[in-house]
Amino acid sequence: MKHFAKLIFLLLALGIAVGVQCQPPRGPLAFPYRINADKTVTFQYYSHTATDVKISAQCEKAPVNLTKNASGMWSVTIGPVKPDIYPYNFIVDGIQVMDPANEYYFPNERFKGSLLDVPGDSPLIHSMQDVPHGTVTYEYYPSAEGTTGSLVVYTPPRYEKNTTKKYPVFYLISGTTDTEETFFKVGRANLILDNLIAQGKANPMILVMPNGNVAAQIADQKGGLKPGDPMGRESAEAVVRSKQFEDDLMKNIIPYVEKNYRVVANSQNRAIGGFSRGGGQTLRAAFGNMDKFSYVCAYSSYLTPQEIESSYKYLVDNPKRTNKMYKLLWVSVGNEDFLYKQTVEYMDYLKAKKINFKNLITTGGHTWMNVKTYLAATAPLLFK
Amino acid sequence: MKHFAKLIFLLLALGIAVGVQCQPPRGPLAFPYRINADKTVTFQYYSHTATDVKISAQCEKAPVNLTKNASGMWSVTIGPVKPDIYPYNFIVDGIQVMDPANEYYFPNERFKGSLLDVPGDSPLIHSMQDVPHGTVTYEYYPSAEGTTGSLVVYTPPRYEKNTTKKYPVFYLISGTTDTEETFFKVGRANLILDNLIAQGKANPMILVMPNGNVAAQIADQKGGLKPGDPMGRESAEAVVRSKQFEDDLMKNIIPYVEKNYRVVANSQNRAIGGFSRGGGQTLRAAFGNMDKFSYVCAYSSYLTPQEIESSYKYLVDNPKRTNKMYKLLWVSVGNEDFLYKQTVEYMDYLKAKKINFKNLITTGGHTWMNVKTYLAATAPLLFK
Repeated sequence: MKHFAKLIFLLLALGIAVGVQCQPPRGPLAFPYRINADKTVTFQYYSHTATDVKISAQCEKAPVNLTKNASGMWSVTIGPVKPDIYPYNFIVDGIQVMDPANEYYFPNERFKGSLLDVPGDSPLIHSMQDVPHGTVTYEYYPSAEGTTGSLVVYTPPRYEKNTTKKYPVFYLISGTTDTEETFFKVGRANLILDNLIAQGKANPMILVMPNGNVAAQIADQKGGLKPGDPMGRESAEAVVRSKQFEDDLMKNIIPYVEKNYRVVANSQNRAIGGFSRGGGQTLRAAFGNMDKFSYVCAYSSYLTPQEIESSYKYLVDNPKRTNKMYKLLWVSVGNEDFLYKQTVEYMDYLKAKKINFKNLITTGGHTWMNVKTYLAATAPLLFK
Repeated sequence: MKHFAKLIFLLLALGIAVGVQCQPPRGPLAFPYRINADKTVTFQYYSHTATDVKISAQCEKAPVNLTKNASGMWSVTIGPVKPDIYPYNFIVDGIQVMDPANEYYFPNERFKGSLLDVPGDSPLIHSMQDVPHGTVTYEYYPSAEGTTGSLVVYTPPRYEKNTTKKYPVFYLISGTTDTEETFFKVGRANLILDNLIAQGKANPMILVMPNGNVAAQIADQKGGLKPGDPMGRESAEAVVRSKQFEDDLMKNIIPYVEKNYRVVANSQNRAIGGFSRGGGQTLRAAFGNMDKFSYVCAYSSYLTPQEIESSYKYLVDNPKRTNKMYKLLWVSVGNEDFLYKQTVEYMDYLKAKKINFKNLITTGGHTWMNVKTYLAATAPLLFK
C-alpha cells in the first residue's frame, strides 16, 4: 500500500490530478481559505508567473491585493468578515478565476464564482445544524417546445414518512444568469427551511426551484444560437423570457409538481417568490394568474407602474379584491441595491393604489446575502 | 415593461450581472460553445487584454489556440469531435479558466473544468432520452467525528410509486479531488441507469454516491488546516484516507441508506464500484469486508500484489472461497491510462492466484469518458 500511497503523492507532486487527466495548478497546492479565530479569512493562490493577483469578494467594497512569497504562493488575510456566505473570485493579471482550492461554487450561466462561508459564533439561519433535514431532489419534467426542464425540489423532514400528509408549495425563482441550483447551493433554501421548521417558525412546506431561463434551455436542447446572436443565453428580451417562464410554470411545472408530490393544490397553499429577474417573473406570474397564488414575495425586484397599468390594471382598479386575494404581497430590497430607487417607486405606487403589502428594507445590495435574509423573513409568513 | 427590459439590457451591456453584484466578462458576451452539423465545435472567449488564449479539452491531445478578432472576441473551431462529454478549460495567458459562457461544470476540489457535451447521431447511453427517469437526491447523514456527510442518491423510475418493492444498492465512489457530485454531473450515472433500465439491460437499482474524501470533510467542518499543511485537502495519506472512508462507509453510510431507503440489505444485493482513488477505496472496502459485497467494480484502478499479500492475504489463500463470494470482480482500464501497467500487473496477479474476474481494456486514458463506458458495461451485470 506504501507503493500506492507513494504513487498518489508522486502524481500530486507532479501536479497531475489522479481522477482525470486534467491539471490542477502546478507546484505547491494552495490550502483552501482559512477562517481565523478573529473572523479574518486567509486566502492562497499559487502562481510563479502572475504579476498581479487580487481577490474580489462580496464582503469587500473593492478587490484586495494578494502578495507573493519566494515559492510563488500568493496570500492575503481580509476582514474580520461578518458571518455569511459570500461569492468571490481571484483576479489574476486581470482574469477572473474561481479559487482552485475551493470546491464550493456559485451555479451561474455566466460568471464563475467560489463561495466563502464564514460561520457565526451562534449558528446562522442558513447553517447546517443538528436538526431534522429535508431532502433536495433534482427532477426532470416535460417543458416548453418538447425540451426537458430541470427542477430542484426541497421536501421537508419526514415528507417520506408522513405518506398521507399533503404539503403547501413555495415556488422560488432565481435571478438573471442564475440556474435552478442557485437557491439551493448559494441561497441554502433547504437549510433555512430545515432550521425554521425545527424552531417552529415555519410550517413544513415543499420548495420548488425551477430554471427561470427557458429561452436558454430551448437553445441548449434545440440549438438556435446563431453567430449573429452574440449574447447567447441572454438574447431573449426580459419580458418575452418572463412570459415564456410564466407559461412553463403554469402549464408544465405546477402540473408536474402537483402530479408527482403530495401537495395541497389550491391558491391558499401556493406561494411564489423570486430574486431580481426571478422577482419580476414572480410578480408577472402572480398578477397574471391572480387566482393561483395567495403569497407573493419579490426579493430585490419590482414592476414599473407603467407595466402594471398596461398589463395588470385589474390589480389596482379593485384594491379590495386584490387585498382579499393576496394573504401576503412582499417587497424587500437593500438600500445599496442598484434597483433600490425603482423598488421604492413601486412601493409608493402600491401604497397610492391602496394595495396592502409588507416590506423589509435592509442594508446591502443586490446580493444573495440579502436573498437569504429575505427568504428567512418570508417563509414564516406563509401558509398561516 | 419596456422600461424593465431596457434596464436589463443596459445592465448587461455594462457587464453587470443582474442577479448578484458580480462582474461577468465586460464587453460583448461570448456565446456558449456551438456544435456544428459536422460535429466540429466552435468556442468563444472574450478578452481585449489577453495575448494568448488556448483551449485545453480532453477531446484534444494538446491545447489549441484561439484567434482574436477586432472586437476582442477569441474563437476556434475544433474537431470533428467524437460524441461524448469532455472536460475542458480555456488557458488565458497561461491561466486556467472555466468557460464563462457555459454553466455546466466539473465538480472537483481542485481544478475547475467546464463540460462539453457532443450528442451522438443516435442517442448515447448517457444522454437524456424520452424514457422514465429516476430521481437524484442530495442527502445529509451523520458521518465521521460528528461531521455531517453528503450523499447523492439515485432512485430508479417508479421507486416512489412501488412503495412495497425493495431494491439492490450500488455504491459508487469517485476519484481523487472529485466530489460526491461527480458521478452525477460528469458520469451521468442517473441517465445511464435510466436508459439501461428502459432497455431492459439493467435491473432497477439504487445508486449511492458518497464523498470519498472524509479527511477533507472533517477539515472543512472541524478546521484542522494548518499553515504547515500546504496540501490542504490532499494532505492525508492515501491509505489513511482510504481506511477513513471504509469506516465511514461501513459504520455510517450503509446503515443510513438501509434505514432511509427501501433496500434489500444483504451482500447479494450490495455492489460497490469506484474510479481511480475511489477504485482503490472500493477494493479495500470489498476485500476488507468480504461478506458485505457480492459485486466489486474497479474502474481505472487496482491494488498492488504487495498490499493484497500484506492486508488481504485470505483473499488469495482461498481462491475457491473468494470466487464463491464474489459474483463479479471487475477490472477495467484504458490502454493510455497512466495506471495501465499497474492495472495489468494486478490482473496478472489475480490470474496467477486463480481469482476469477471480468475485465475490459478500452482505448483512452484516466478519464470520465471511460468511467461512463465502464459503468454502462458493469451495471447490466449486477444483481442478476
